Amino acid sequence: MIGELSGDRVVFDKDASLELPYYGRKKGNMLLFSLEEAAYLMEHKKISVGFKNKELSVDEFIKTSSGISDNFELKYIVYKDLRARGYFVQPSATDFRVYPRGGRPNETPAKYFMYVISERRPIGLSELLKGVISAENVRKQMILSIVDEESDTTYYEIKSAKLCGGKNGFSARKKTATLLHDRVIVWDSDFSFELDSNGFFGKFIDENRLQLSLVESAFLLKNEFIKIVDLNDKEIGLNEFIRLASKIEGDFSIKFDVYEDIRNKGLIAKTGFKFGSHFRVYEDISETKSHSKYLVHAVSPEHIFLLPEMSRAIRLSQTVKKRMLFAYKKDGGIRYMEVGRVKM
Amino acid sequence: MIGELSGDRVVFDKDASLELPYYGRKKGNMLLFSLEEAAYLMEHKKISVGFKNKELSVDEFIKTSSGISDNFELKYIVYKDLRARGYFVQPSATDFRVYPRGGRPNETPAKYFMYVISERRPIGLSELLKGVISAENVRKQMILSIVDEESDTTYYEIKSAKLCGGKNGFSARKKTATLLHDRVIVWDSDFSFELDSNGFFGKFIDENRLQLSLVESAFLLKNEFIKIVDLNDKEIGLNEFIRLASKIEGDFSIKFDVYEDIRNKGLIAKTGFKFGSHFRVYEDISETKSHSKYLVHAVSPEHIFLLPEMSRAIRLSQTVKKRMLFAYKKDGGIRYMEVGRVKM
Repeated sequence: MIGELSGDRVVFDKDASLELPYYGRKKGNMLLFSLEEAAYLMEHKKISVGFKNKELSVDEFIKTSSGISDNFELKYIVYKDLRARGYFVQPSATDFRVYPRGGRPNETPAKYFMYVISERRPIGLSELLKGVISAENVRKQMILSIVDEESDTTYYEIKSAKLCGGKNGFSARKKTATLLHDRVIVWDSDFSFELDSNGFFGKFIDENRLQLSLVESAFLLKNEFIKIVDLNDKEIGLNEFIRLASKIEGDFSIKFDVYEDIRNKGLIAKTGFKFGSHFRVYEDISETKSHSKYLVHAVSPEHIFLLPEMSRAIRLSQTVKKRMLFAYKKDGGIRYMEVGRVKM
Repeated sequence: MIGELSGDRVVFDKDASLELPYYGRKKGNMLLFSLEEAAYLMEHKKISVGFKNKELSVDEFIKTSSGISDNFELKYIVYKDLRARGYFVQPSATDFRVYPRGGRPNETPAKYFMYVISERRPIGLSELLKGVISAENVRKQMILSIVDEESDTTYYEIKSAKLCGGKNGFSARKKTATLLHDRVIVWDSDFSFELDSNGFFGKFIDENRLQLSLVESAFLLKNEFIKIVDLNDKEIGLNEFIRLASKIEGDFSIKFDVYEDIRNKGLIAKTGFKFGSHFRVYEDISETKSHSKYLVHAVSPEHIFLLPEMSRAIRLSQTVKKRMLFAYKKDGGIRYMEVGRVKM
């Protein structure tokens, strides 16, 4: 079968669909193939393509297609990889609509909305969320396929996540703690034990004294479970404390909002420093003796992801068997976006 | 024994050293303790401390010391942690001089020069290198102890690293490859196999064609092993190629310098994208079938490390059992700084 390259499509007579039923899209009397489909079928010697009265070799078709579409090589790398894994693929507004393994276009609904991107292109949170929403609205999975400089593809599933925790019944007597520069110390031994064992707040720095992080302190202060004083025993109110904490920690405000949301949902957040994230999160206080389930990193709604960094975060979260969530503010609340590597 | 708080020292009569031989430093008739030493010995009920004609409680001493020295809490957290692990510690210009386990001040030489830092403080490459040089000049190990917001300490050893690889005998016939936007394709099947099996360059995108990364292409071009043409078959010279590559990849120039250095030393660098670093590095071509030994990330001499990010990079490198190196330019050459987490 010989088709004709025209614009960014290869055009066949519509009868071609009898021989190649799962490729191309009918339009009037024609069957239109995307450049990736055509290159793939040429390599597999299923079709030939003519252009300007000349039959193109595979190499010529690839070079010509690269001149027609900036993203051709990237998309072709992913297209071939998916076909090699047994998936049928159709072009769509989101780069590709991918059918479940064993499923076929026109016979089965698509399962994935797939976006193809080079590791070199930064991508905004808002752009990712737009993709998640349009996929989830029609019950598809959103997949970001990232092509690295050696043309290796990594697939990430991106979805919205809900946090559900145990009950949030923490309550404590109000006792005094002291802000020492960038950490808060609870001096009373009984109170320290109460905070630790009932709420998993803070960390013992010796047998009696508990050290609270800035977000923990702000949370306890806001809920009136502690009173905070400075080195001269002068009381520090919540607003003043938040102002001081924001000076110490540039992203304190968004961190605190996320911390509060996690605590209020009955989960427990502790520092994720060793994992390069803001928090590691336990679903319930009974779990705090074992491993945390999530890593949560707070980002602004305008955040731009650099893909090598995102790749590092996801890779690390998976080697320690935790789910990676990015938290952001929307409509006055906190939302969570989960990113995980998937094997297609 | 009762000492007197004076400035940022606690002063005892020099006879105190008979009872506490590994603490403090003699000065004339006096034995001077650092604030951390004094707090530690107070908590262990070995000494008492007076200030303004009043004996201080441990809590009062800690609060007072926090008012005297901004870094007191941080240093005290690390001091206590080291003592609990059985190390003797002396104050020094680098925060602490730490003796080997079983070793003691005045009896054994110190083993570590230790710096104490909060996870919140960014630290420049040049500052780290200064520490490495002053430690290595006197054959000590430089340790960075990073205190996170929950007062947990992680210890990182930082040292200079030398890369030694196999022999660098790669040579190839000069054939043509094409720059397609941001990747370079070798069309000739024999030449593709030669580049792959003799030099571990590129990656096959199908049975015949090899794709080269931008740094690989520039390296092969500079060594006159390939000729690169654009989509219109116009030849691209080395300078022009580097200019184009730098437009595609912001940090191409430093990446290429490091890539070239690694290749010229007989090692093999491939993309480290999945690990969030510029390169994964094999010591020898015979190793390329198994695991790479290093992750290498190129940074500018002015680079400022954010510690949570550094923590993530190191943590990831260790979960995949690779050594993490940062490469930078100095005196016209490339140097490597290794960072690894150590258990003290």
